[in-house]
Amino acid sequence: MTTDSPSPRVVCLAGGVGGARLADGLARVLPPDRLTIVVNTGDDFRHLGLTICPDLDTVTYTLAGVSNDETGWGRAGESRRALDEVARLGGPAWFGLGDLDLATHLTRSAWLDEGESLTAVTRRLCTGFGVAPAVLPMCDQPAPTLIVTDGGEVLPFQTWFVRERWQPAVRRVALPDDARATPAVIRALEAADVVLIAPSNPFVSIDPILNVYPIRALLEDVPRAVVAVSPIIAGQALKGPAAKMMGEMGLEPSAAAVAAYYGHLIDGFVYDQQDAGMAAEDGLALLCTDTIMSGTAGRERLAREVLGFAVELM
Amino acid sequence: MTTDSPSPRVVCLAGGVGGARLADGLARVLPPDRLTIVVNTGDDFRHLGLTICPDLDTVTYTLAGVSNDETGWGRAGESRRALDEVARLGGPAWFGLGDLDLATHLTRSAWLDEGESLTAVTRRLCTGFGVAPAVLPMCDQPAPTLIVTDGGEVLPFQTWFVRERWQPAVRRVALPDDARATPAVIRALEAADVVLIAPSNPFVSIDPILNVYPIRALLEDVPRAVVAVSPIIAGQALKGPAAKMMGEMGLEPSAAAVAAYYGHLIDGFVYDQQDAGMAAEDGLALLCTDTIMSGTAGRERLAREVLGFAVELM
Repeated sequence: MTTDSPSPRVVCLAGGVGGARLADGLARVLPPDRLTIVVNTGDDFRHLGLTICPDLDTVTYTLAGVSNDETGWGRAGESRRALDEVARLGGPAWFGLGDLDLATHLTRSAWLDEGESLTAVTRRLCTGFGVAPAVLPMCDQPAPTLIVTDGGEVLPFQTWFVRERWQPAVRRVALPDDARATPAVIRALEAADVVLIAPSNPFVSIDPILNVYPIRALLEDVPRAVVAVSPIIAGQALKGPAAKMMGEMGLEPSAAAVAAYYGHLIDGFVYDQQDAGMAAEDGLALLCTDTIMSGTAGRERLAREVLGFAVELM
Repeated sequence: MTTDSPSPRVVCLAGGVGGARLADGLARVLPPDRLTIVVNTGDDFRHLGLTICPDLDTVTYTLAGVSNDETGWGRAGESRRALDEVARLGGPAWFGLGDLDLATHLTRSAWLDEGESLTAVTRRLCTGFGVAPAVLPMCDQPAPTLIVTDGGEVLPFQTWFVRERWQPAVRRVALPDDARATPAVIRALEAADVVLIAPSNPFVSIDPILNVYPIRALLEDVPRAVVAVSPIIAGQALKGPAAKMMGEMGLEPSAAAVAAYYGHLIDGFVYDQQDAGMAAEDGLALLCTDTIMSGTAGRERLAREVLGFAVELM
């Protein structure tokens, strides 16, 4: 990509922290009207009366520069007056919600109650946070991801992820069969020159997006570059349960296994220099680089490298 | 009432501040198992995704000693981090909700979402606040009070009361025709020796309770002392729109007019010394005293006087 060629139209499929950081890097490199971030809403849930959308919020907070980079969720400079009092009253306080973060959920819930779509509410919230690129929920209706544990228990995602600290072994991830993409998502994907799959959990962040009809078909059928960034580095996830889940689901926890899992859906794969020399199927373009995004400079660097790699595959 | 006679079983019908203060006085005088406070829920509403019950909260906070006595609503030592952020995001912030107060609404909403009744949720919240007497919502289903303005507009109560600062003139108050009392309320009223009508707004605090079937009938038909305390002192309400509404609804704003409004429902009427010499219908017992409850001592004093007066009418 040179400065005199027009920027490609990019859609980034994103879950939480890893997706938010790559999205932030892209937002620093691309004009806002060339970037759409399609965000997993499979782990959205209703809690304390509110509609909570953890991945949408992580992406929005990160792009707004107000995220808590230490925890990977919530806001910087947060307080917990309300939630500490919920705990004192005996209410459900297992999901960490700061006072500033609560304002997002309260505002979202108010606007949803007024009959606005999650897409419209997310746009208004992004305006409030000064976030310019389009941040789109993968769908407007609830599309809850369920975790079927090794013991056969079926847990709502956040119950497994936060309350149970993703410790129960996973037999499989159950996704709804009636999730439908919004017109905004379909338009963005149809127009995209490049689709990036962020270094998010393939099973509980990316699969829920691909499962929304007709997103997978739009990636498979439309000729354009689809590039995934590995969330696995040297057999480990930087954060979260991806590597643990791979083991439990009979997959080798490796970048190569992630590439194989995405299979013919992707044209290119970006993996970390710690896995240098990774073998991959014939025909899959590979980029080996430093995929750890240290600070905003690291996010911007990876975004530039991934975009440059993807543009070559267009 | 002497100390060696058993305490009467008392039910107090209460709205917001005035009701909460008399209830607090009663709680300081009566054993917890002799006192039930039946609270108006006509001004409950859904806001920011949450179920908010202003009168239940004012009563609970006052009995718990955590109320903000300056504002008459909300909690002492309150902060507004969440609501200030809602305002910054462009969300609806016209209803004052502090961070501690939010915890009550969040916890209530969570428990209601779990399928618990408002009665059960209120009991659990009272336990959390260390409130011993029974605080009962007048009914478990929503029973919204509507304000029909002089201009013919129909406003939900809180929209009129808080957002419009009760300025639009009132043509009439519209109450639902399908509100049904809970078994707990019916049991308490059936067992009561004394029913006290707190110095709350007759039209928007007490009428909504009396309108819940069969509360009015239980007051009229069962022989026991029913005593009201005037919310009007020298033609004014200590707080809120009672006097203004009386003028708009064609009533003289006076303690005597309140007594006449309750009519044959009440056996006794307590009014302020500033209205000394008030005329009333034959057969209505009168107690003229200082009805302004200054501090907890003032609440306790008035509770003792009202109880002593009511017991004589049993």
